[in-house]
Amino acid sequence: MMFNVPKLTQQYLPQITNKIDQKTKPLGALGALEQLAMRLAIIQSDRTRQWQNIDTLNAQVIVFAGDHGIANQGVSIAPSDVTYQMVVNFLNGGAAINCFCRCHNMPLSVVDTGMCTPLPEALKKQHRNFFESRLGAGTHDISGQAAMTIAQVNNGLSAGESIAERAIEQGCNVLIFGEMGIANTSAASAITSTLLDIPVDRSVGLGTGITTEQLAVKKQLISQGLTRLKAHKDDVSITTILAELGGFEIVHIVGAILASAKRKVPVLVDGFIVSTAALVAHKIAPEVSDYLIFAHQSHEHAHQQILEHFHAQPLLQLALRLGEGTGAALAFPLLQAAVSFYNDMASFESAGVTV
Amino acid sequence: MMFNVPKLTQQYLPQITNKIDQKTKPLGALGALEQLAMRLAIIQSDRTRQWQNIDTLNAQVIVFAGDHGIANQGVSIAPSDVTYQMVVNFLNGGAAINCFCRCHNMPLSVVDTGMCTPLPEALKKQHRNFFESRLGAGTHDISGQAAMTIAQVNNGLSAGESIAERAIEQGCNVLIFGEMGIANTSAASAITSTLLDIPVDRSVGLGTGITTEQLAVKKQLISQGLTRLKAHKDDVSITTILAELGGFEIVHIVGAILASAKRKVPVLVDGFIVSTAALVAHKIAPEVSDYLIFAHQSHEHAHQQILEHFHAQPLLQLALRLGEGTGAALAFPLLQAAVSFYNDMASFESAGVTV
Repeated sequence: MMFNVPKLTQQYLPQITNKIDQKTKPLGALGALEQLAMRLAIIQSDRTRQWQNIDTLNAQVIVFAGDHGIANQGVSIAPSDVTYQMVVNFLNGGAAINCFCRCHNMPLSVVDTGMCTPLPEALKKQHRNFFESRLGAGTHDISGQAAMTIAQVNNGLSAGESIAERAIEQGCNVLIFGEMGIANTSAASAITSTLLDIPVDRSVGLGTGITTEQLAVKKQLISQGLTRLKAHKDDVSITTILAELGGFEIVHIVGAILASAKRKVPVLVDGFIVSTAALVAHKIAPEVSDYLIFAHQSHEHAHQQILEHFHAQPLLQLALRLGEGTGAALAFPLLQAAVSFYNDMASFESAGVTV
Repeated sequence: MMFNVPKLTQQYLPQITNKIDQKTKPLGALGALEQLAMRLAIIQSDRTRQWQNIDTLNAQVIVFAGDHGIANQGVSIAPSDVTYQMVVNFLNGGAAINCFCRCHNMPLSVVDTGMCTPLPEALKKQHRNFFESRLGAGTHDISGQAAMTIAQVNNGLSAGESIAERAIEQGCNVLIFGEMGIANTSAASAITSTLLDIPVDRSVGLGTGITTEQLAVKKQLISQGLTRLKAHKDDVSITTILAELGGFEIVHIVGAILASAKRKVPVLVDGFIVSTAALVAHKIAPEVSDYLIFAHQSHEHAHQQILEHFHAQPLLQLALRLGEGTGAALAFPLLQAAVSFYNDMASFESAGVTV
């Protein structure tokens, strides 16, 4: 697997900056939206050599679902069954991410990366936006053993890469990844602890809303996984970290983010889980950060630490803690607004406004 | 002028809360978006007795433009001419607010409340979304005299009321007010200082980007206006405050906000200037705050203090300092998303998701 992510050259930065500064508004008055337009223009111009206009955004949302062995220990508000039930809900159009995708005309795909139970054939056939890329029937419980094998990690990275590439080949020019997996904040916290070298007290949170008793158990179980990882004295490669701490959906998202960056397609990064995958991708290929746009600051404390690592100012701060890609979907209209003012707003000269 | 604003009864609050809590997501996981859906549902149900669904949002943006005598003292980055030029830009579709209105399919109207120079007849006739409601040719310079007469204030409040009522009669069920007026942060700072009883050092800011030298002058000039206002020992009514400190566009927006609240139509409040108008409206009729949804936290420090006064958590924090209604227009898709999940998201029961 080759993940050669090109560094942005920013060769059109002077033209892009000038174009934004000539718009009929005080210098910098559109704040973060100007930074956003600049990022989108820089990424596109590096890909297409066109900086004069940003292409209409053609976004896709891909939700990766997977189960986690550690869920059996009661570290989440719901049992693993809910992963499956929510996937069915996604396919029936009833979840929050479906509502937001409909609001903003974004197609939604759902990928089973390894739920405890696969969907029945009949159901799969009914839904053309459903894809199967199962690495197993849920990961192993990371408090006691490795989540998966190295081979599973590599398969998941490749599969995630293929899925993102297919979307890009279909004309998608901005990608949103979502996730569904009961207990996946446990995997994300364990990975974040390892990669940012922070203690579990600062990386493990309430997820979607567990009790303080459950939180203590969650921290203890994750600590066990981290202790086991430390025994790998000679090999603490990213692949080993992913194999030890999992999740199938996270591994897929890492591959998908790397593939997007490799193709110079921006990723609008959702909350804690997807940001953890972005952190992993960044460890594999540091240039990936050039292509990441962080959508929101979630309610999970560890997410803040990942954002700080990336020096990121997320677009939204709405105290969300849902996942599914919902935070990114909610932020998407801001990208459209950035494109709109970049492309269509008059310049001082064209509007006859004196500066 | 009667501004009897009805207090929200919140009679359907239990049903609305229950509906949101039964959605297929962890309790409260949509964070601020849940509060937003609740507000919209409460306001609508109080108006229509329907809480089961929120009506499709039919938003209008109305930009009020006016000039300020104090602009001649160099308290702004641009001369008063720019108010006129930007109004022409609005009518030609070239400003930021035009771009964002197009993004979200919102009609935009522009009202001249008293620019230094009126639009020529030929131009007025070309644009059916342009309205004239001139209280004068710019306010007087508030550093030396009252901005306008009491009669002008009353005319402006009435006119603003009529404009909002017409929009509501046309079927608009959420209103966005924007403003354009070189030097209007001076008027807004003076009013905020008075109503929140804070010194000019805390209410006067850089506006759209003046120098520190200009800032010192701006503070001094506003202080002169405030000193004169204090001479009104017997009459410090809201009408007097508006007459002394101005702005024609601010007075119109106060009337428009009061009319919206009176008709139980929510107002998505833009930045510092519109929030100042909301503060004035709130002083006239405290119940108005039930109908205010604050769109964003602008870069102007005094805006933060108004938000604190209302105990408001604005939807966006993008360091905007443009006005025109742009912050509210950018936040509008969040209202649509709130309506969407409220209306269309499956319940645990309907989706067969176990809690």
